[in-house]
Amino acid sequence: MFFASDNAGPVHPEVLTALSRANEGYAMPYGADDAMMRVRAQVREIFEAPDAMVHLVSTGTAANSLALACMCQPYETVFCSAVAHIHEDECSAPEFYSGGAKLTIVPCAVDKMTPDDLRASIAAEGTRGVHGPQRGAVSITQVCEKGSVHSLEELKALIAVAQEFDLPVHLDGARFANAVATLGCSAAEMSCKLGVDAVSFGGTKNGLMGVEAVIFFDPQKTWEFELRRKRGAHLFSKTRYLAAQMEAYLTDGLWLSSAQRANSNMARLSNGLRKIDGVSFLAEPDANMVFAMMPRAVHKRLHEGGAVYYLMQGELEGDDPSEPLLCRLVCDWSISDAQIDQFIGLATG
Amino acid sequence: MFFASDNAGPVHPEVLTALSRANEGYAMPYGADDAMMRVRAQVREIFEAPDAMVHLVSTGTAANSLALACMCQPYETVFCSAVAHIHEDECSAPEFYSGGAKLTIVPCAVDKMTPDDLRASIAAEGTRGVHGPQRGAVSITQVCEKGSVHSLEELKALIAVAQEFDLPVHLDGARFANAVATLGCSAAEMSCKLGVDAVSFGGTKNGLMGVEAVIFFDPQKTWEFELRRKRGAHLFSKTRYLAAQMEAYLTDGLWLSSAQRANSNMARLSNGLRKIDGVSFLAEPDANMVFAMMPRAVHKRLHEGGAVYYLMQGELEGDDPSEPLLCRLVCDWSISDAQIDQFIGLATG
Amino acid sequence: MFFASDNAGPVHPEVLTALSRANEGYAMPYGADDAMMRVRAQVREIFEAPDAMVHLVSTGTAANSLALACMCQPYETVFCSAVAHIHEDECSAPEFYSGGAKLTIVPCAVDKMTPDDLRASIAAEGTRGVHGPQRGAVSITQVCEKGSVHSLEELKALIAVAQEFDLPVHLDGARFANAVATLGCSAAEMSCKLGVDAVSFGGTKNGLMGVEAVIFFDPQKTWEFELRRKRGAHLFSKTRYLAAQMEAYLTDGLWLSSAQRANSNMARLSNGLRKIDGVSFLAEPDANMVFAMMPRAVHKRLHEGGAVYYLMQGELEGDDPSEPLLCRLVCDWSISDAQIDQFIGLATG
Amino acid sequence: MFFASDNAGPVHPEVLTALSRANEGYAMPYGADDAMMRVRAQVREIFEAPDAMVHLVSTGTAANSLALACMCQPYETVFCSAVAHIHEDECSAPEFYSGGAKLTIVPCAVDKMTPDDLRASIAAEGTRGVHGPQRGAVSITQVCEKGSVHSLEELKALIAVAQEFDLPVHLDGARFANAVATLGCSAAEMSCKLGVDAVSFGGTKNGLMGVEAVIFFDPQKTWEFELRRKRGAHLFSKTRYLAAQMEAYLTDGLWLSSAQRANSNMARLSNGLRKIDGVSFLAEPDANMVFAMMPRAVHKRLHEGGAVYYLMQGELEGDDPSEPLLCRLVCDWSISDAQIDQFIGLATG
Repeated sequence: MFFASDNAGPVHPEVLTALSRANEGYAMPYGADDAMMRVRAQVREIFEAPDAMVHLVSTGTAANSLALACMCQPYETVFCSAVAHIHEDECSAPEFYSGGAKLTIVPCAVDKMTPDDLRASIAAEGTRGVHGPQRGAVSITQVCEKGSVHSLEELKALIAVAQEFDLPVHLDGARFANAVATLGCSAAEMSCKLGVDAVSFGGTKNGLMGVEAVIFFDPQKTWEFELRRKRGAHLFSKTRYLAAQMEAYLTDGLWLSSAQRANSNMARLSNGLRKIDGVSFLAEPDANMVFAMMPRAVHKRLHEGGAVYYLMQGELEGDDPSEPLLCRLVCDWSISDAQIDQFIGLATG
Repeated sequence: MFFASDNAGPVHPEVLTALSRANEGYAMPYGADDAMMRVRAQVREIFEAPDAMVHLVSTGTAANSLALACMCQPYETVFCSAVAHIHEDECSAPEFYSGGAKLTIVPCAVDKMTPDDLRASIAAEGTRGVHGPQRGAVSITQVCEKGSVHSLEELKALIAVAQEFDLPVHLDGARFANAVATLGCSAAEMSCKLGVDAVSFGGTKNGLMGVEAVIFFDPQKTWEFELRRKRGAHLFSKTRYLAAQMEAYLTDGLWLSSAQRANSNMARLSNGLRKIDGVSFLAEPDANMVFAMMPRAVHKRLHEGGAVYYLMQGELEGDDPSEPLLCRLVCDWSISDAQIDQFIGLATG
Repeated sequence: MFFASDNAGPVHPEVLTALSRANEGYAMPYGADDAMMRVRAQVREIFEAPDAMVHLVSTGTAANSLALACMCQPYETVFCSAVAHIHEDECSAPEFYSGGAKLTIVPCAVDKMTPDDLRASIAAEGTRGVHGPQRGAVSITQVCEKGSVHSLEELKALIAVAQEFDLPVHLDGARFANAVATLGCSAAEMSCKLGVDAVSFGGTKNGLMGVEAVIFFDPQKTWEFELRRKRGAHLFSKTRYLAAQMEAYLTDGLWLSSAQRANSNMARLSNGLRKIDGVSFLAEPDANMVFAMMPRAVHKRLHEGGAVYYLMQGELEGDDPSEPLLCRLVCDWSISDAQIDQFIGLATG
Repeated sequence: MFFASDNAGPVHPEVLTALSRANEGYAMPYGADDAMMRVRAQVREIFEAPDAMVHLVSTGTAANSLALACMCQPYETVFCSAVAHIHEDECSAPEFYSGGAKLTIVPCAVDKMTPDDLRASIAAEGTRGVHGPQRGAVSITQVCEKGSVHSLEELKALIAVAQEFDLPVHLDGARFANAVATLGCSAAEMSCKLGVDAVSFGGTKNGLMGVEAVIFFDPQKTWEFELRRKRGAHLFSKTRYLAAQMEAYLTDGLWLSSAQRANSNMARLSNGLRKIDGVSFLAEPDANMVFAMMPRAVHKRLHEGGAVYYLMQGELEGDDPSEPLLCRLVCDWSISDAQIDQFIGLATG
């Protein structure tokens, strides 16, 4: 019963098979292999963007930081939510890669910025002339950090604010596939068709070993990205092994079916937990993640039963069995119904 | 006949098997997996260094840049040879990771610095007080960039110079295994026992998909390294797949046997080429790489016969069939005798 | 009637005289001049800190950024108030000088952090292991950005919080002298005796042309500071002209008498304004600066009468004469009683 | 007898007078003062460049580093001579300000690059695709670091090489005025008319307290420069005191007459020294600086007579009175004929 993270489960078998297949003979290094050409074509088709440029890296932090470094100057600031991964969980990699740009933190009730708060934050920056940082890019996370998924209308409204100020938009899509699965839209409808300029398109949390694609819909940034990637030491020599994973991911909709599976795992889990007294959710689990308040007694039963997940607030040990403690639960594609039901059973008591 | 690079060949089958084996069930992310614990123990044993700290990254440039960033300050300078990979082939990643430190280029006849030249370069820096960069670390490459291998005595002499000035020593060992195979020494004898402080211990060029270990013999730098790695976006979530590769590599001496195989492939190749009129080598091919001058006619026959390798100087097309053109030839563990003999056959004409 | 800033007035005549006197003959450059030696002795005496190291720079932003760069690592974060100059008004110079460290913004009601808010902010950082930035330094501004002055007790409480977490404390004292004048304490009592580690000791806003001192009470950081200052291009060749200004400033208490004069100018001004209907202050003008809400009609009269100051919020033109508009008013040492009375007269109408 | 540096002498009296004059009343800070407007007009007239943008900073290192940061990207490299001030004497400030760009060192016999060496260096970079740094800007020093002055033809030839590769050209003119005085040309003829894109126009070494102008002939870089200057903490609040100095410098040709005076002082000095047995010059002292080999006995007499200058190589104490020791001698505008003659007298013995 492993609900700690979607990066703790196994790699999808199709991906392992693809790696074996890729291991035939010799291939030109540094992205000049055939698989990379095929991946580029796949991305362009899936995103309905014939000019899109695609670059592979091995971590989500690399995808975000390198994309943003190409989208803002050191003397600019990136607008993101108070709980954005780029702000909280990347040890200031965006600041490092951008040469010292700032992140301006937009308040958020749970995990979504409102257009008004975003507008107010942007408006407040760039009013002090040369003394303050200049307005740079806007970064939006989808799936959000606490498990919500922006509707297309919500994304549109945020992007419209960025466009009011003529700022480029980055989408941190570490769980891009899960959001598409939730919304039932196409990849294009959730990105370029809305005006997104660059996407961090996650694979690692959805069955790959460690591959993320950075997609720029405007190909002009390509060479700069390549240089920054190399300079950031993120250019693999044996790129064929990254490309093979991404190719498998994009073939026959594996990216989407895996995400659908993860989301429906979460639906099964949250529906079970919802019925338990004293359980509440920080946000509706729109995709494959939930932040749940559960009584200490529930946590104790789960813990003793062998369930693995992160407690985000509070201590497992304590006097009051009904005290609510916050935890994070994440399902990946590999979690079985049996595991989920066992978890719910333990939680129910 | 692929002699372009040791990062163009397939991954060793043992490594693929290890990846499949690692793909069972769930594992804690970010380096807290069991395989990583085992790798640490293996490295400590092989390097006879019970306190050594080991960190895995996915590219050689990351290994070098992160190690050096922990070994020098932004206002210092790193001493390296004029053909060092960190100077020529990393798009200034060391400068980026160190926050803008300089590299001071020590002249070299072919690919080895002499102790006297190193001493003169170090002496010349640090004489201008606050106006010049301060003396930082010394970085030595082994196997050298043109195919030479330093003897233990040569390494010792260079390290002694660093120690005269109390500077830490980094060893860029992208082909560490090949050098050990050449010298017939132990890993410890070529590193910590000589006074090396940190090693970039390569795996990618020797049968892994993309894994290098950074080894600090003084564990004090560990936490700083971890922070810089995360901040550089080089912390994998699914570290078990890096660890599994490295574990396989260090098991039953695979690292060494693969390197021996690559070296003996090069010996077979160079012995064949050596007999051809007009062929000469920039340096003795001590390990698995040679820079060879060969007449244009030889290149033409190879090219037409389907051999793949990089021409480093001169154009394949040209009037004079005897004009010598410089090329680089590299053997990895996977090259077969038949391929080598076919190559020699074509070259011989 | 110039109340826009304390950096808009003339330099104190004593300072010009000192510059002329300094212009005799030849002096060793780069801080090796005699005046610099005397300044060091003066600072040590005034701060009762015989080991203190003193470095001169020409801007407050340089003082803050260089001091902080010596006090925190690129992977750390600096805690400061939401209105701190280092956050809002230095175009991310601290991020630049530190190599990309973050600033963690502590909320503040007006311009003072509370110890509880500071503690909560520090506690919240450093809980995500390698994923978040590490806890770095605490930076406190005195005089605060909206005109308040921390009492010694308030400073002590903030510093105690920093010490709970073993973090070094930086004091942004662009208006250090004005705060000392307000509190009637000694320079030492407001800094090293409280546990402050480094002070940006301002001179420019208090009658110098452009000189600030960075004072480290622990001399260990001296050489690093010198290197970072040079590398930041802030080492003057003709340092004697900086030193001469600072020497004059520290002689016969000019620094303090100028600040007292500026503060009493503000007292006269604020006492006059306070009596006007519809005038209120964002914070008590403890030193030489006030943020005042005044009805539009008042602003219009002042504007037409030739008063110069910054409107911080709202537009001078508008329908409602009673609408309150926020402005900033600052007095330096040079403002005359007549100017102040003329201003009050206009405002009173 | 102070020949150590042209930044050790007094400020020109006209400059002190200008500072006093500038000290009247109130002035808008941060470059919005009237004197700055006048300086801009003066520069445009003197450089015959009606669109040129002018920014003042207080050190030559700031001028060079900020100019170059606007002219090259972090993943590019700046070409300069092996003895360039930006390489040897700025503690890597250009690397810092550019975000980690490299300097590619072009060999030079004494202190001038040849067009062929520059071309070879540029050609060699940018041939390794994404692996090496990209070609950035070319930086030329005039007056050169060992005292030579490039002829207009020499400058033209170097600039032509930069233009072959479409690279922008920076001129480090810390002693710009001295070079113009030597060549007898106009400021425009030695800069924009030759194709120079940006000039560091020195004032500090020629009678100012600490003011240098950065001049961009293409005004497009202006806003970026302003942001980088602020972020580098080089924006003075009381800019009027920088502007006043520069205004005095550019009024009635003070910049040129001071340089002519310094050059003729050097001519008097070098003509005297030239006659002494055993004295030789590293390069012809074209402007106001000479690197001279002089026998130890000569140095001893000078030292005992109270002459102050830097010994660049060798030790004053030693057995052999005829051993030649290298020193640097610099004249500024303030050195009197009597001092020079006294120096020559001592040297002659």
